[in-house]
Amino acid sequence: MLYFVTRTGELEGLMDFDLALSTDVLRRTPETLRAFLGGLPEPWVRGTEGPDTFSAFDVVGHLIDGEETDWMTRARIILARGPDPRFEPYDRFRHRARNVGRTLTSLLDEFAQLRRSNLALLASWKLSETQLDLTGIHPMLGPVTLRQLLATWVAHDLGHVAQIARVMAKQYKEAVGPWVAFVPVLTDHERPRS
Amino acid sequence: MLYFVTRTGELEGLMDFDLALSTDVLRRTPETLRAFLGGLPEPWVRGTEGPDTFSAFDVVGHLIDGEETDWMTRARIILARGPDPRFEPYDRFRHRARNVGRTLTSLLDEFAQLRRSNLALLASWKLSETQLDLTGIHPMLGPVTLRQLLATWVAHDLGHVAQIARVMAKQYKEAVGPWVAFVPVLTDHERPRS
Repeated sequence: MLYFVTRTGELEGLMDFDLALSTDVLRRTPETLRAFLGGLPEPWVRGTEGPDTFSAFDVVGHLIDGEETDWMTRARIILARGPDPRFEPYDRFRHRARNVGRTLTSLLDEFAQLRRSNLALLASWKLSETQLDLTGIHPMLGPVTLRQLLATWVAHDLGHVAQIARVMAKQYKEAVGPWVAFVPVLTDHERPRS
Repeated sequence: MLYFVTRTGELEGLMDFDLALSTDVLRRTPETLRAFLGGLPEPWVRGTEGPDTFSAFDVVGHLIDGEETDWMTRARIILARGPDPRFEPYDRFRHRARNVGRTLTSLLDEFAQLRRSNLALLASWKLSETQLDLTGIHPMLGPVTLRQLLATWVAHDLGHVAQIARVMAKQYKEAVGPWVAFVPVLTDHERPRS
């Protein structure tokens, strides 16, 4: 669908995938997380939404896993055009064991370095529209295009930025007293979804 | 409730309000938003979740309104201990008319400056535990403490950071194709709540 900006400044319609607009978001995430979380005291960084949910620390670890095992690995499989363009299933909990004893600062640094390398490699490919339409096979979703994979990389980043903010906010769910009724993020995902 | 960090690094229990931990989050928001949004192309900045919902641009305007008319104004009413410690209702749409024609960059600068001034003033008050327990009257919620007001300031910031990320992610709701099923932020708030 095409989008356009109305006279009142609002965007109508959803955005089509655009490689430059996508990398503009992807390259910001490490610095956004550094401003948001770098040096923040442990209670904010380690709080979760309950058992088996991610803390801010866990989310950064999960984003590192994505850089190392998910997005570019899958893009390479698609671009290789081999006989079996099937992706490996992605382990959402790889970071748990991997990052025991690590500091958040070191994870933020590692994420920034991995993201920078991946975006440099992505740019070096100079992907054509035809290449963006190539497909791989997702183990659960079936055929997906490179374009959809890269759009998902962006949405996945943004979803996890939202998650970090939500998880942090919920640490004050009791502290806000009656205002809990007016701050919707405090009651989002009562049953955790991510 | 008291919190503590478990052996596996998770936080148990919710955080009590703490003034230093609160201002540590509040002082970061302007730089987080600058890293996240500064110089970002219009389609990301102007997209909404549908009619009468906020774009990223609107959220920054709303945060400015909070600095000018909400948090510190209400804190002053509480601390004044006057005969009628009732808050003015807060206008969630003041920014709409106020910021027509403004650039996002100028709003980000204005927000940073207002937040810096407000936190300097807050620090100068050197609030005691007794003062944090003083109350004002919220027009809809009734009696609320200064402690709850300041906790809500923090949660409100975080909720709006989450909102910006969610609204941006949703611009790619179609572009991700079948992955929409695996990226929960794309289907959060189908009926907008904030």
